Amino acid sequence: MERIVRVNTRTGAIEASPVPAEMERLGGRQLIAHTMRAEVSPICDPLGRSNRLIFAPGWLGGTSVATSGRLSIGGKSPLTGGIKEANVGGEAGQKLARIGVRALIIEDAPKTSEPRTLFLSQNEMKWVDSSPLTGCGVWETLARLRERFGSHCGLLVIGPAGEMRMAAAGVATTDPNGIQVRYAARGGLGAVMGAKGIKAIVVDDRGGEIVRGADPDGLTDTSRRFAEALLADPKLEGRRKYGTSGIVATANELGLLPTRAFSAGSFEAIDEISGAKLAETIAARGGDGRSGTPCMSGCVIRCSNVFPDANGVRKVASLQYENIALLGSNCGVETLDGIAELNALCNDLGLDGIEMGCVLGVAMEAGLASFGDVEAAADLLRQIGEGTPLGRILGQGAVFTGRALGIARVPAVNGQGIPGYDPRALKGNGVTYVTSPMGADHTAGNAFGTRGTINPLSPEGQPENSRALQIRSVLLDSSGLCLFARGPLVAEPNLLADLVGGRFGGDLSFADLARGAAETLEVERAFNRAAGRSDETCDVPEYMRTESLPPHGTVYDVDREEMLKVWKMEPSTTKF
Amino acid sequence: MERIVRVNTRTGAIEASPVPAEMERLGGRQLIAHTMRAEVSPICDPLGRSNRLIFAPGWLGGTSVATSGRLSIGGKSPLTGGIKEANVGGEAGQKLARIGVRALIIEDAPKTSEPRTLFLSQNEMKWVDSSPLTGCGVWETLARLRERFGSHCGLLVIGPAGEMRMAAAGVATTDPNGIQVRYAARGGLGAVMGAKGIKAIVVDDRGGEIVRGADPDGLTDTSRRFAEALLADPKLEGRRKYGTSGIVATANELGLLPTRAFSAGSFEAIDEISGAKLAETIAARGGDGRSGTPCMSGCVIRCSNVFPDANGVRKVASLQYENIALLGSNCGVETLDGIAELNALCNDLGLDGIEMGCVLGVAMEAGLASFGDVEAAADLLRQIGEGTPLGRILGQGAVFTGRALGIARVPAVNGQGIPGYDPRALKGNGVTYVTSPMGADHTAGNAFGTRGTINPLSPEGQPENSRALQIRSVLLDSSGLCLFARGPLVAEPNLLADLVGGRFGGDLSFADLARGAAETLEVERAFNRAAGRSDETCDVPEYMRTESLPPHGTVYDVDREEMLKVWKMEPSTTKF
Repeated sequence: MERIVRVNTRTGAIEASPVPAEMERLGGRQLIAHTMRAEVSPICDPLGRSNRLIFAPGWLGGTSVATSGRLSIGGKSPLTGGIKEANVGGEAGQKLARIGVRALIIEDAPKTSEPRTLFLSQNEMKWVDSSPLTGCGVWETLARLRERFGSHCGLLVIGPAGEMRMAAAGVATTDPNGIQVRYAARGGLGAVMGAKGIKAIVVDDRGGEIVRGADPDGLTDTSRRFAEALLADPKLEGRRKYGTSGIVATANELGLLPTRAFSAGSFEAIDEISGAKLAETIAARGGDGRSGTPCMSGCVIRCSNVFPDANGVRKVASLQYENIALLGSNCGVETLDGIAELNALCNDLGLDGIEMGCVLGVAMEAGLASFGDVEAAADLLRQIGEGTPLGRILGQGAVFTGRALGIARVPAVNGQGIPGYDPRALKGNGVTYVTSPMGADHTAGNAFGTRGTINPLSPEGQPENSRALQIRSVLLDSSGLCLFARGPLVAEPNLLADLVGGRFGGDLSFADLARGAAETLEVERAFNRAAGRSDETCDVPEYMRTESLPPHGTVYDVDREEMLKVWKMEPSTTKF
Repeated sequence: MERIVRVNTRTGAIEASPVPAEMERLGGRQLIAHTMRAEVSPICDPLGRSNRLIFAPGWLGGTSVATSGRLSIGGKSPLTGGIKEANVGGEAGQKLARIGVRALIIEDAPKTSEPRTLFLSQNEMKWVDSSPLTGCGVWETLARLRERFGSHCGLLVIGPAGEMRMAAAGVATTDPNGIQVRYAARGGLGAVMGAKGIKAIVVDDRGGEIVRGADPDGLTDTSRRFAEALLADPKLEGRRKYGTSGIVATANELGLLPTRAFSAGSFEAIDEISGAKLAETIAARGGDGRSGTPCMSGCVIRCSNVFPDANGVRKVASLQYENIALLGSNCGVETLDGIAELNALCNDLGLDGIEMGCVLGVAMEAGLASFGDVEAAADLLRQIGEGTPLGRILGQGAVFTGRALGIARVPAVNGQGIPGYDPRALKGNGVTYVTSPMGADHTAGNAFGTRGTINPLSPEGQPENSRALQIRSVLLDSSGLCLFARGPLVAEPNLLADLVGGRFGGDLSFADLARGAAETLEVERAFNRAAGRSDETCDVPEYMRTESLPPHGTVYDVDREEMLKVWKMEPSTTKF
């Protein structure tokens, strides 16, 4: 039976209850939005007793629909001060759904700071002692939990950064083989998990079941149609070969690749860090190296990779676009090995690589390391893990670091570091960074994919574009589907409606879903307004409106009033 | 002729222009509110190019009215993120007014970070090189400027904290004899001055004139009446003898004295840090020690003191209530010598003693020093001056420190550290901290003085009380009059109207002034709302609503909705 599991970290109580009527058709990001609005005071301290940390599989979580196992993690963000949903692949989401957990809601905060581990299975929910894991890196934590509980378990863990409640901390999980480290990275939800005193959550799904839905036959049929369309997606081959790193060179050509603390949009060492170079290096080195690996069971896209060092030993998995951009060109790092070194450190300490790339850029501008100096940058990251005073500054994110170091050029919107798309050269993303309830986020409405239809350098048409992309993002993040599964849905929007209808019953149209997504955005915005955060009091960083970005020489010039039109537009009822 | 002086720190231009019609009757805090609203984008970076730093004498600045020389300094605060006015005695305000400067408005930001000094006199306005002062402490800076420009000049300076753009940095000035260090302490305006690249402002008022006003005879008459009433104020003797420290023992008795990181409201070593002990120590030690000294020429109240060390050598001037509370009992410091040591360090580094007392309490709770350990606390303060990573955390204020150190018990409202009145035992102040546009501020509407008429432990009647006190605070901060000059105005509110009428002309009533003050508050609130700060999204710190405060065992229990009623009340048109 499906259930809502509530964990009180103060009393230790773990209680399951049937899914209430108002949650019956909710999932993922949408469930988080409604639950936060209903249960959490928006003005609460994100690291205090009143905030909640919510884990919610999507609408299609637990089903056999391809790529449907992504997990939404949410709460009030210590980074943005608003609501946050961060989305992650790996196995844990699917397993939670298969033991019937529609949502796991972590409440209150413990009196002591010694972190514990939560164990959930079909028939048992309990705390287990994990004191030896205190202070452990993510990689070792995952390995030891797999050893202790079995490799069939799904895992959600934090690293030292989350334990220290640092606002750049994420929540990590892994793939079926324990090779990938995947992150619900953004918004500092690892710090919220740390403040709840939880080091790890172990999900044992033995005895669990595939979710068959209200209309099992219908769901199976649509699911098959969806899988076939996915396999026929012309982008499949590129994604399997290069993963997200396939866009590194394109971003550079478009002049939007963050380079040396967002001072340029293209990087002279581009050929050394491109997707082609990545695939070539992996193939040449062999050993643990792999391209085209999945992050969750049965994924047909398989965009992940294992990047090996020169000896063929796994260094980081996966090496992806955002981290190549932020930890690479943005830090002036000219080799994939250098990027992999920094990325592996972030992964092990439990840090969001995007935020840390922004942080390191600010630190480099302040003179704490030279651009391109991997060892100096790695030392800075290590200081975060050690909790030195400097580490405690850097671990709190780019805005915090800028303030502490007296640097005004901070690439952040709404408190969160800007991902790998400089808004001066991809103006639709500027609109999303400012207006999205999620702050500057690479998955909240990314205009990179629409660069062919909307001129990325012009302010024209960007609000309309961002509006549509934000709706799409809510739908993906609520369904549990991967962003890379969007191709078939763009081609046939009602396919998503059929999948959701098969899951929950009823004859749904895409229009119903789009209206629901628009409502979710409004719920999130209402939470943020009540928390004191509003797109009406927000803009891109000041310097991006005056300092022009090479090579195009553009500044960010979408008018603030124009951006706010996003919320005055009806959602499209036909276009995904 | 009266003028508005605008300084562009980017181009170096210094320009004077006649006071425009819309500013003709504006002064002090009120002038700052209207100018910020008219000229500054509320969402600007407080340390960026768009913020302004405004120095404005009050309505009565430059006149011969007693205590009328207080100076308002304002801008967008890096600490609260909203508008801020900080008010200071000393000589600079009066001298600015006497060379006809109604407001000095510092604009833009320089490209280089080397701070400069601004020199203003009746006939000359220029930049002077002051590179040898870079990094200098406040005390040495004041001394060297007095030596270079003459002791007749008024001075406004920042210390290393302001140069490093730390959000706990204030702006310092001195008395006619260069003995007192007085601060426009709150809100981090020293960091704004640092960001404007200004180390010091020298005001040479030779050739300047007393401001006689539109009705010189009327003003002289009323001024005399006001001075007589001040001299007859029954509180005069106590203020001259003890200064603000006279309330230390009372605050302790009332159980509202911040003690050991706001964990108690009374302090067992109270007899060692009381006003009586202070006066007794000063008298016994002799030497430089003085009680009853003025901070500005001709003040009849003379609430300041010079606290000497055991050898009679000036240690700090003045030692005042807020710093005794925050750097003393709140840090568990049991001796006046210990408090004086910490206070002298704050003064020299250019830091707000209130904010630093809150910071040290948080740092002590985090285990960085033991409560009562003066030397460890002094070392922490020295690190701020040295700009070590830990110092760069602490210098940013209590909220920043709490985040970096993972401490949830942070005594701050709206980003600013709580002054010497725990709102759990003086509930009117909680209303002011939350609703005042100034954040938690000891002068924005302090209910300590009304404890006899409103039960400080009850939530009843606090919004009404705070409302009236906030109006009073705007009137004092806009007039240039000292808070301690309020006695005669409370007794006869129209006295203030007569003073202002004498200054600007017209037949004013107190009702006119009260309505104007209410309008000023609305202008400030509008700025804050547009900056994303609102009392509707603010509360006292979470722990103060659940953790009871000894000895009374009370929590803060004024309902949030109740607090917001402050803004639904008409201002009293008869009561000051």
